[in-house]
Amino acid sequence: MSVERTLHHFPLDPASRQVRLALGEKRLPFADNPVRYWERPKALTELNPSGLTPVLVEAGEGGTLALCESRAVLDYLEEAYPDPALLGADPAERAEARRLLQWFDRKFEFEAGGFILHEKMEKRLLGLGAPELANLRQGREGLKSHLYYMDGLLQGREWLAGRRLSLADFAAAAHLSVIDYFGDVPWKDFAAVKTWYMKLKSRPAFRPLLQDRWPGLTPARHYDDLDF
Amino acid sequence: MSVERTLHHFPLDPASRQVRLALGEKRLPFADNPVRYWERPKALTELNPSGLTPVLVEAGEGGTLALCESRAVLDYLEEAYPDPALLGADPAERAEARRLLQWFDRKFEFEAGGFILHEKMEKRLLGLGAPELANLRQGREGLKSHLYYMDGLLQGREWLAGRRLSLADFAAAAHLSVIDYFGDVPWKDFAAVKTWYMKLKSRPAFRPLLQDRWPGLTPARHYDDLDF
Repeated sequence: MSVERTLHHFPLDPASRQVRLALGEKRLPFADNPVRYWERPKALTELNPSGLTPVLVEAGEGGTLALCESRAVLDYLEEAYPDPALLGADPAERAEARRLLQWFDRKFEFEAGGFILHEKMEKRLLGLGAPELANLRQGREGLKSHLYYMDGLLQGREWLAGRRLSLADFAAAAHLSVIDYFGDVPWKDFAAVKTWYMKLKSRPAFRPLLQDRWPGLTPARHYDDLDF
Repeated sequence: MSVERTLHHFPLDPASRQVRLALGEKRLPFADNPVRYWERPKALTELNPSGLTPVLVEAGEGGTLALCESRAVLDYLEEAYPDPALLGADPAERAEARRLLQWFDRKFEFEAGGFILHEKMEKRLLGLGAPELANLRQGREGLKSHLYYMDGLLQGREWLAGRRLSLADFAAAAHLSVIDYFGDVPWKDFAAVKTWYMKLKSRPAFRPLLQDRWPGLTPARHYDDLDF
């Protein structure tokens, strides 16, 4: 069965990155179509009324499926392509991976990533001027508490949700990697998180993310360095 | 196999309500423990480090499982108790239900529910004074666009995600029902949404939600009226 797969995404969008990592890990090839979501392009809103990336379009013999919103895409991939499994085998492991997925997509984004990426990325993309330092400071404080929490988990676990690599790792890494593009992750204070991120960074699925560049947004010098 | 089930929740929390509806629809009995999440009670943060409701604890012969974060609980229930299915049968239906789940939990909450419930509920619970009218107005404008979108969907569909009742309906109804407690849903302008909500309101799973009262927060007069 041949499936044509296109991912509409923005390279520095954490939600899009989660899906790219899952596709990569499952070795599912896809054509990629970077979209300037902040301009609300018609082609994107016609696919997804929320106007958000990512959208995965699969066209196969059974018809075409347009999958919208990151969790819906990840859950679909997990069901349609269960090997390798990215959610753990038993109910407790799955529940832990999903707890952390929601943690990063909501709590982390509200308390840390949202502030930093709005100030350092979205304002640039939208031409809204210089970052506001108070917001940036709040985001960096939030980021530190989250790194502290992750470090605690990773001192007792191989991966965030337990013994196996899961979507929780991809969610965390997707959020952190965009912040790292802007040089805002204080890796040296969180050794266990740094070790974990090095492991992730060296996986083949991660490579395309390290090659991302966006005009006008220069990555931190260590961004694509495996030994940072 | 006997399972003891306890739901730690706040009656007027939309995330908690989604889980109560799913438990009710699947006819899974549970003890309920209302928690004042805004006081960050230790018993809750020990169960869930994010301090958020709902948390479902299941104690059975195989051990005890504490399920944290609403989507993780809903996904667990769907896998552990698949009958009745609340996510649709084929991949397209499931993707549509999940798209809308994420829509309501993020977009709706950011653009509508968050503003209204912060001003009308959380400020009361936290003793933060009177609602700010500009925020309330922004929330109500957001609410109208969402109701408009839902009305469009429901003119062509029996339920939000298609022909079957799904978690998408429970997500939408959970969010709307709390706003309705405070009398802020302009039902009369959205006939298809009103008809859909009447159908949901008359389901046995919905009854406990209509009986919720919280000291100091008086519900709108029509709140528990099936024919509003």
